[in-house]
Amino acid sequence: MVKKGNNVIVKEGVILGENVVLEDDVFIDYNCIIRDNVTLKKGTMVGANCILGEYQMDFFKTRNPGKHPLVIGENAIIRSGTIIYGDSTIGDHFQTGHNVTIREKAKIGNHVSFGTLSDIQGDCEIGNYVRAHSNVHIGQKSVIDDFVWIFPYTVLMNDPTPPSEVMLGVHIESFAIVATGSLLLPGVTVEKDTLIAAGSVVIKDVKETSIVGGNPAKVISDISKIKNRFTGEKVYPWRYTFKRGMPWEDSDYDTWYAQIEKQLKI
Amino acid sequence: MVKKGNNVIVKEGVILGENVVLEDDVFIDYNCIIRDNVTLKKGTMVGANCILGEYQMDFFKTRNPGKHPLVIGENAIIRSGTIIYGDSTIGDHFQTGHNVTIREKAKIGNHVSFGTLSDIQGDCEIGNYVRAHSNVHIGQKSVIDDFVWIFPYTVLMNDPTPPSEVMLGVHIESFAIVATGSLLLPGVTVEKDTLIAAGSVVIKDVKETSIVGGNPAKVISDISKIKNRFTGEKVYPWRYTFKRGMPWEDSDYDTWYAQIEKQLKI
Amino acid sequence: MVKKGNNVIVKEGVILGENVVLEDDVFIDYNCIIRDNVTLKKGTMVGANCILGEYQMDFFKTRNPGKHPLVIGENAIIRSGTIIYGDSTIGDHFQTGHNVTIREKAKIGNHVSFGTLSDIQGDCEIGNYVRAHSNVHIGQKSVIDDFVWIFPYTVLMNDPTPPSEVMLGVHIESFAIVATGSLLLPGVTVEKDTLIAAGSVVIKDVKETSIVGGNPAKVISDISKIKNRFTGEKVYPWRYTFKRGMPWEDSDYDTWYAQIEKQLKI
Repeated sequence: MVKKGNNVIVKEGVILGENVVLEDDVFIDYNCIIRDNVTLKKGTMVGANCILGEYQMDFFKTRNPGKHPLVIGENAIIRSGTIIYGDSTIGDHFQTGHNVTIREKAKIGNHVSFGTLSDIQGDCEIGNYVRAHSNVHIGQKSVIDDFVWIFPYTVLMNDPTPPSEVMLGVHIESFAIVATGSLLLPGVTVEKDTLIAAGSVVIKDVKETSIVGGNPAKVISDISKIKNRFTGEKVYPWRYTFKRGMPWEDSDYDTWYAQIEKQLKI
Repeated sequence: MVKKGNNVIVKEGVILGENVVLEDDVFIDYNCIIRDNVTLKKGTMVGANCILGEYQMDFFKTRNPGKHPLVIGENAIIRSGTIIYGDSTIGDHFQTGHNVTIREKAKIGNHVSFGTLSDIQGDCEIGNYVRAHSNVHIGQKSVIDDFVWIFPYTVLMNDPTPPSEVMLGVHIESFAIVATGSLLLPGVTVEKDTLIAAGSVVIKDVKETSIVGGNPAKVISDISKIKNRFTGEKVYPWRYTFKRGMPWEDSDYDTWYAQIEKQLKI
Repeated sequence: MVKKGNNVIVKEGVILGENVVLEDDVFIDYNCIIRDNVTLKKGTMVGANCILGEYQMDFFKTRNPGKHPLVIGENAIIRSGTIIYGDSTIGDHFQTGHNVTIREKAKIGNHVSFGTLSDIQGDCEIGNYVRAHSNVHIGQKSVIDDFVWIFPYTVLMNDPTPPSEVMLGVHIESFAIVATGSLLLPGVTVEKDTLIAAGSVVIKDVKETSIVGGNPAKVISDISKIKNRFTGEKVYPWRYTFKRGMPWEDSDYDTWYAQIEKQLKI
């Protein structure tokens, strides 16, 4: 049985499984496959050819799809070709680019986006306002805190002595920036307010506010040293210089944060 | 309304939008989605599961597809799974591998090809006879001149201080070769007749005829020094040693160029 | 004509070409395209939206699909979105992740798996028990022996002086491990029992039992030196410390190998 809210649009060729919930204003484009136990909250849009609640290993062994619920929050934009497994929860305002894959057991916060071809291996925790651009690979056991940026072709690994049965995830703390083409080795912690330069191979922990780069990555400088090449002003910590899509978009970081703190104390 | 020329083949499951023009000998394979205002010129072939004229952000906001024309030139081969947005023009003899994505506002010349999984972020200019192999990422504001080769897993970036609102594209001049896995930083110019070695992280401009390599990339040599390991002959500039698919295929570069010059002077 | 065994399931929207053979217990999910001359052996499962026996260049020139047989062995799991060309043979217990591409003329052994987004360029030889993780690119003329592990975003190149008509494949010998994000240059041989560290740019042969790393890759150590960080025990050669999915899973490598040797001598 499918439960549909008001103003739901389901285009031709869409397959809907058992126990699917489509809340108000959901839109599903041509030829999507929505398998059993998938919930799409209000206003979510799913591009053509997506597969949500994709079959897991139990199906391949038994031909029984099993029970693997997937919940996607309000106002998501899931672009065409995206594949998302069950046993996951995804917050509001989620976005994917095209042909993104998200495996089972992912816990994903609000306002998260993954660019085209990103490959989230599942069994990971991703906070709020995390932005991963195209073709980012997040290995199992990764933990990514709030407000982290990850640029294209970055890989978070997890096997310290491949091939093995051990999985040591990477931990990236809030406000860290991982630039394009970086490789983060298993078990590494990237502390907050750091910048991993493009093409870095990060083999050990990165300390707060530092910039690292190279193969293997070494400390290059401190983020306070980076200036805007046009204005000469400091760029980092970026929460004071960048607002688009952030919760402090209409004021500034400190004002917003003071409000948050106040709310928490009440 | 769809306007069809002679000998047009449209296979089952294809969705055709409004104001689609399919010129003579166009072939569209199973389950493609051709959205509004797409023109496919003579002899173009579209593989299965492609999406042409894909929805842009305005659709996600308003559910109105907007007017975003896409024109693809004659004799293109668009392989299965390719997604191309509107507001773009693409020249003749275009080719894609599988699952290529091309975002809006791309200006692409003639005889251009992008390999499997390449991700063209749009708002970029690409000349003629540009060949990008598998899994190449071209950021917005990139400018690529004629006769450039880009090998797999290369990324052209554009944000000098991520995350920011500034976009500084990479500029690659004619006859340059960017080997596999190279990362080109925002605002870099790669001058003509250069060779970027595999795995380079290019952080500053690359001067004419030089070979650079490493992380960060440094000058290694001059392209005139590279010899064919079997014949001992000079390899570069490659326009004198490579012809397949080039306009000088049936003669040689100098003869062809002399003809071009003559035509321009008339 | 399609030849079907017992208990074959073909879901809605599947297109079956001429001379397709589906042996017992084959399962084909929604919207797959199985072109002419494809054989799927017993127990093989094909995820949604796959294309098997994909059109080659002759089709684009003549609109005649030509004769390009593809045989996939028993008990394969082909995940959704995978595209496999013809003129190839693939052994038993094959697995792909999502959106894998395998071009023509690939010879692939038993118990091989390719992760999500891997791009096998064809005209290559791959042994038994080879595991390539997500987004691995295997260029034409590559030769990979048995029991090789290749981790994400690794590229095996083949053009020594790009662009040229020469193709020199990479050769990876048994039990070698290529860690994430490595680039292997054309013509390189990686000998057995080696470990290529993450992010290596391998420009020359790698000698037996060595560990190499860096850009360009240099010898760092010998695999015998690596210890498990928890137990302090030697990790490599990995065939003595890792069993999952291996033919010695229920005993140990030496016992298994002794049995094999005995069988060969009979």
